[in-house]
Amino acid sequence: MDILKGNAIVGQSGGPTAAINATLSGVIRGALADENIGTIYGAYNGVEGMLAGTYCNLTEFFADESKLKTLETTPAAALGSCRKKLPKLDGSDDKAEETYEKLFAFFKELDIRYFFYIGGNDSMDTVAKVSAYAKAHDYEIRVMGVPKTIDNDLVVTDHTPGFGSAAKYIAASMAEMLRDCAVYTVKAVTIVEIMGRDAGWLTASAALTRVNGMEPDLVYLPERPFDLEQFFEDVKAALDRHPNVVVAVSEGIRTADGTYVCELVSNAGTDAFGHKMLSGTGKALELAVKERIGCKVRSVEINILQRCAAHLGSLTDITESVSVGKAAVEAASRGMTGKMMTIERVSTDPYVSRPGCEDIDKIANMVKNVPAEFINERGNGITDEGVKYLLPLTFGESYPAYENGLPVFLSLK
Amino acid sequence: MDILKGNAIVGQSGGPTAAINATLSGVIRGALADENIGTIYGAYNGVEGMLAGTYCNLTEFFADESKLKTLETTPAAALGSCRKKLPKLDGSDDKAEETYEKLFAFFKELDIRYFFYIGGNDSMDTVAKVSAYAKAHDYEIRVMGVPKTIDNDLVVTDHTPGFGSAAKYIAASMAEMLRDCAVYTVKAVTIVEIMGRDAGWLTASAALTRVNGMEPDLVYLPERPFDLEQFFEDVKAALDRHPNVVVAVSEGIRTADGTYVCELVSNAGTDAFGHKMLSGTGKALELAVKERIGCKVRSVEINILQRCAAHLGSLTDITESVSVGKAAVEAASRGMTGKMMTIERVSTDPYVSRPGCEDIDKIANMVKNVPAEFINERGNGITDEGVKYLLPLTFGESYPAYENGLPVFLSLK
Repeated sequence: MDILKGNAIVGQSGGPTAAINATLSGVIRGALADENIGTIYGAYNGVEGMLAGTYCNLTEFFADESKLKTLETTPAAALGSCRKKLPKLDGSDDKAEETYEKLFAFFKELDIRYFFYIGGNDSMDTVAKVSAYAKAHDYEIRVMGVPKTIDNDLVVTDHTPGFGSAAKYIAASMAEMLRDCAVYTVKAVTIVEIMGRDAGWLTASAALTRVNGMEPDLVYLPERPFDLEQFFEDVKAALDRHPNVVVAVSEGIRTADGTYVCELVSNAGTDAFGHKMLSGTGKALELAVKERIGCKVRSVEINILQRCAAHLGSLTDITESVSVGKAAVEAASRGMTGKMMTIERVSTDPYVSRPGCEDIDKIANMVKNVPAEFINERGNGITDEGVKYLLPLTFGESYPAYENGLPVFLSLK
Repeated sequence: MDILKGNAIVGQSGGPTAAINATLSGVIRGALADENIGTIYGAYNGVEGMLAGTYCNLTEFFADESKLKTLETTPAAALGSCRKKLPKLDGSDDKAEETYEKLFAFFKELDIRYFFYIGGNDSMDTVAKVSAYAKAHDYEIRVMGVPKTIDNDLVVTDHTPGFGSAAKYIAASMAEMLRDCAVYTVKAVTIVEIMGRDAGWLTASAALTRVNGMEPDLVYLPERPFDLEQFFEDVKAALDRHPNVVVAVSEGIRTADGTYVCELVSNAGTDAFGHKMLSGTGKALELAVKERIGCKVRSVEINILQRCAAHLGSLTDITESVSVGKAAVEAASRGMTGKMMTIERVSTDPYVSRPGCEDIDKIANMVKNVPAEFINERGNGITDEGVKYLLPLTFGESYPAYENGLPVFLSLK
């Protein structure tokens, strides 16, 4: 085992989740416990902060370890985030050298020998590039990616930190909305739009309510082409069974020719401010049902609430998110570099998982879709096999502490 | 004290809340404990069920009292709801006599001597009419209304059961969204649309996050005329202070001439399905900001989630909702009739409340608005006095039980 002594830096990148700070806490916990690591710094807004020299000293800030508990139930990226991609290293970008020199000068100045980057697909690209540049320039640094995304669309890992909490929030909210929609006797359709442009994992989670007695009548994922005529048939058949029909749809569903359903209403002319009207997928289907079926109909977009609802996290997700962050530090300390941490599912019933890691090059720019066997034949529902797979990721409740009736969150900026 | 022996019926009416079943539980608890009341029946879908003869025996169902706990954290109306108003008794409606005869025949058949109706403004109208008809026709029955509405717009009561839970959910979600919106360094405006057509109580609750460190930059209630030019100025000033601006707006805000802001984009032409496009208030302001300020902007509509989110209730609200239901039975048993239960605030700090009651005629068709002293001078924020008043209603967390990762709710239908 190669011993490397020095300081560490950690950054967060990409869209917020309810668990990305739990992973940050795991990295901090790992670094505080590791004798090879001196100080752990937090970069503000990911690599943006490393390039701008804006950062904080997390070793000092978390001298009181109880603050880490609060961090673990604080939503969104406590260090701030970015969408910045580092320039290509193949010579095609003449600003590249300047950027990397600046970044590595910052590393040298702070004696950074450990680099932890928590993010989604684009962030893993950053991990790969930093790793490659360091190797090419003989700067000894261990570079580890730690995944997070509510979309659960990263390959090689069984699932991603952040997904379980979003899935739990969506399923619990769906359970509530199903009851809200059931109170009247008048025929009505409610269409719930859920995040997921290319992968339908989050929308599939809406079907989990099955295990506690009520579920949406119809669930449509982007993995299957969406057919408007079939949709009308499905809705009519559901209305024949009972008056209150609830439909869950991915924002990214598209017809066989690749047209997004939300584009179906894009020719709506301009509004009073001279702007072209754009509509969401749920809204588009709401209008379609109104036109063709004529019953009462509304659409609900869960929107950003589903990615930041720390007030109801999955304890399984939060615990795994901490573990995987901690395991990233342990792996780096043992000599690993250029890897992304993963979660391996050991068994589903009882549910057991453990952290793993894979070469970063295996991950970049691949999307993991919901497999065919999790979607029913007609493409309008989730199979029991899918529910069985997803359900354990929502086990246990993670709640923040409350003061004055409101959740207590931590600020690092 | 007049003793009246007989059976009781309870119904739920109007829009769902996270606490209306807690009140139902209170009524059942009260009835089970009352020696004057034999059986308590539950009418399905309010007076609709009483007229159709569809009901259940709650005394039997809740022989196992532990089920009442589950009922108290189940959202929406477990008995189903309705929007039915009973016909007028002034002779203007020739179907009136037939309707009331049917209703009272149903009462006689089941020997109903206690009538409890849980609902909002329209439901109190039903209470008043049933009470008046009974009096005029010498049918001895005690008729009590128990309020519920997330809108908090009923007069004579300090606040309404259901409001505190919705306010807590909105405030906690706002605390999370504020952090979600703060992660990037790019200028962006997020507009959050909150329920409340005429009264801004729920939107005002978004400002409660102030006590825990972050709050929306701007809050607009329907109590003040909305001026689009002032709004642009406000947003620009906020963007000068920091990049991530968050605005909370009531769905019901309107300009000085009475035009709803959501109507400002109603001339948007027709969509691909031939329908006139309609837009929400948040969406309308999103388009306005895009047009006039040009920065990144999005809108979020909390929608029905805010009225059914039993996964995060206010313990104060749920406790009061049970108490007020129980107190309604005790008051009726002591001889009261034709009243609506209220919540009286004894003190704000420490927060103490107690159930009270008022004549039903004092309530009907009145709206309680947010008072002027709770809104700042410019009409774009909530005063500390407002926050101080609202905050205790969110104290304590009410959580449902979970099984298989999902909340356990009760079904009565």
